[in-house]
Order: sequence, then C-alpha cells, then structure tokens
Amino acid sequence: MTYTLFYAPGTASLCVHWMLIELGVDFRAEAVDLEGGAQKSADYLRLNPQGRVPTLAIDGEAYGESAALLMLLSERHPEHGFAPAPGSTDRARWLELMVYLANNLSPPFRDWFYAGKDGAPEGAAHVQALAKAKVEAVWTRLDELLTDGRPYLLGEKVTTADFLATMLMRWSRNMERPATSWPRLAGYVQRMRARPAFLELCRREGLTEWLNP
Amino acid sequence: MTYTLFYAPGTASLCVHWMLIELGVDFRAEAVDLEGGAQKSADYLRLNPQGRVPTLAIDGEAYGESAALLMLLSERHPEHGFAPAPGSTDRARWLELMVYLANNLSPPFRDWFYAGKDGAPEGAAHVQALAKAKVEAVWTRLDELLTDGRPYLLGEKVTTADFLATMLMRWSRNMERPATSWPRLAGYVQRMRARPAFLELCRREGLTEWLNP
Repeated sequence: MTYTLFYAPGTASLCVHWMLIELGVDFRAEAVDLEGGAQKSADYLRLNPQGRVPTLAIDGEAYGESAALLMLLSERHPEHGFAPAPGSTDRARWLELMVYLANNLSPPFRDWFYAGKDGAPEGAAHVQALAKAKVEAVWTRLDELLTDGRPYLLGEKVTTADFLATMLMRWSRNMERPATSWPRLAGYVQRMRARPAFLELCRREGLTEWLNP
Repeated sequence: MTYTLFYAPGTASLCVHWMLIELGVDFRAEAVDLEGGAQKSADYLRLNPQGRVPTLAIDGEAYGESAALLMLLSERHPEHGFAPAPGSTDRARWLELMVYLANNLSPPFRDWFYAGKDGAPEGAAHVQALAKAKVEAVWTRLDELLTDGRPYLLGEKVTTADFLATMLMRWSRNMERPATSWPRLAGYVQRMRARPAFLELCRREGLTEWLNP
C-alpha cells in the first residue's frame, strides 16, 4: 500500500493531508501548482477529470472528492477510530454529518470563491450572496450541535467529520462572519488547531494564517 | 429493527424509498405534505432540523441526507450487494461516486428549483444559469463513464449510486437538456426504470411521468 496525495496548500486537499499525518502512514505529497494551471494539464486530468485537488493515488488508482477520501482512509485504518465502526449506533450519525458537510458547505464555498469564473461575472454577486447565506446557516447548525458540551462534532471522539469541518471553517476566515464568530465553534476550532498533526500540516503546507494565538 | 421513511413523492426521498423497496424490508412510509408546509412543523423539525425530506427513523433515531441513508442501508443489508464491501477494490470508486453525486448534483438542483426562494428573487436567474451549467457538466461526465459499455455507473452491478443518480436524472426531465439527451444516459435510464422496484415505487408515490414507453 502506497499513497500519493496531490495537493495544493490550504485547498480542499487540506483535510486529507491532515488525516494522513494523523494516521502516521507513509505517503508521498505532490504539490499541484494551481496558479500555474497544472490542474488542467493532460497528465493531471487523467488522474482527476474535474481538474481539482485533492487526488489520492492508491496502488496505481487515482481518486478524488475529499469527503470520500476521508471515509476511505477511515475504513483502511480502522484502528485509529476516526469513524464509528459499521454497525455501531453512531455510524448513521457520522454518515449523515459527512454527507451534510460535503453537500451543504463545499458547493457554496466553491460559489463564494469562484462564482465569477465558473459562471457569468455579472451574476457573481447574486450567486455569492446566496452562497454566504448557506454557509452561515451551516455554522449556526454546527454551533447548535455543540450545545450539549461535546468537544467534537460527533461527541467525545475526533472523527473525519472534524477534519473536514475544520478545513471548511478555515475557508471562512476572511468572510464577514467567519465560523469563529459563533462562540462554540470558536472553542471547537481552538481544540482542533491545537492538535500536533494540524501544526505539522501547517508547517508542511507553509500556512501561517489561522493558527492558535 | 424498524424503519419509518418520511417522504414526499418525486423529491430527494425517492432514492431511499426505492432502495427500501429493492431491499424487500419492512418499513412504514409517512407522506410529508410539503405544499401544506408540514416540513416546517415543530414535530417535523425535531426529526429533521433543515425541514427537508427524506428523514429515515431507525429504532427511534431520525436521520437525513439521501446519500448518507443509501450508504447506511447498504451497510445494514450487505447481502444485497448494493455497495462494494469495505476493503474491496471497488469500494474507493463507490465512495468517490456517492460523494461526487451528492456534492455536484444535489446542490445545483436545489438552486435550480429554489433559487428565488432560498435567495433574492432578483438574483435567481443568475444562480439558475450557473446551476444548469453544473448539472449538464455532470451528465457529460456520467455519460463518459458508460463509454466502456458497462450497464451501471460502477460496472456490472447496480449500486446505491444508481438509485441516487437515476433520481437526480429524473429531476432534469423538464430542463432544456434533460439527462436523457446524452445517448448513453438514455439507455442507462431505460435499464434503471425497467426494474420492478422502480415501477412499484412509482405506483406507491403516484408518479406517472418519466416511465419507460
């Protein structure tokens, strides 16, 4: 088993990169130069037909979709407990949350950052206004999840949903109302950012913003 | 184990309803009157905080998110083989496709149908134009998947991805370019609609459109 992660700092590959470091497995990280357009090269499109990061190559096959990769890694390395085991009571809640995050946050963030490129520039402001409202609605819901005092989104244990959610929260850092404006999410983010693997991730990706004070 | 599905005909609950019929398990189906606003009642919001269908209640706990419910049902009823087993080679491709569909189709369809309600009415046309382009890009990619002659999206066997994708294709039936405009998808849809469980589903939900001739 060998893993190769195709990534770009701070992008949708971040949560997968983070999880690989958490797992302590051997992997190779290959930077994809998004500014230079490397994601649209014929070689990269063969690995990832949408021309996006991340791609994770496993034993010669290449796969995309961050949330799917986190789920896959949790199955391949069950001893770390980053997902409730199949058949356990918490499994359904975990599946629901993974799909909820993938479905309700990733797409509006895409619109928030790329509306003028993916669609007509003159419509971008309208697309972004709706995207912002959708993102903020998710922060409200996630903040509510934490009202019972649980430290992580699904309870006492860190799961893949926390790597995914924290990455998405990071993307809101320059928005009018970043996720950390919600009081419980602010505490949650502090906890997640304190993890040694997060610090190591930031070191490797060269990220200097959005660290704990 | 008892299942109760809260559904509305033709909506995002369709793929879950379909799969329950395919599985041949006992379940109760409760119609939610969306026109009458039942999804916003206090009782329903306790089950589903977003006020959406489907909700699947399992042993007294309620869960949402269609793609997650399909994945969960595949785990609870592995003998039907509607998902590659964990650890198998095809598992990664299945996870990727489930997330891809949830992530790249459900949100733009939401925008296509509800842009003027979820966001500012004056921006709806712009949001819908981008949504339409996103949906069509997915049809192109799914059509390409079938170029090797495989009957179903992941190969020789029907999986949860086929229930999800077919439901989403159905939603495009009144768009300028429905999924069935793509030649391989047209054949694929015929195959999926010929399934006895699909016919039974349409009978139970009272759906008379989008049946095989």
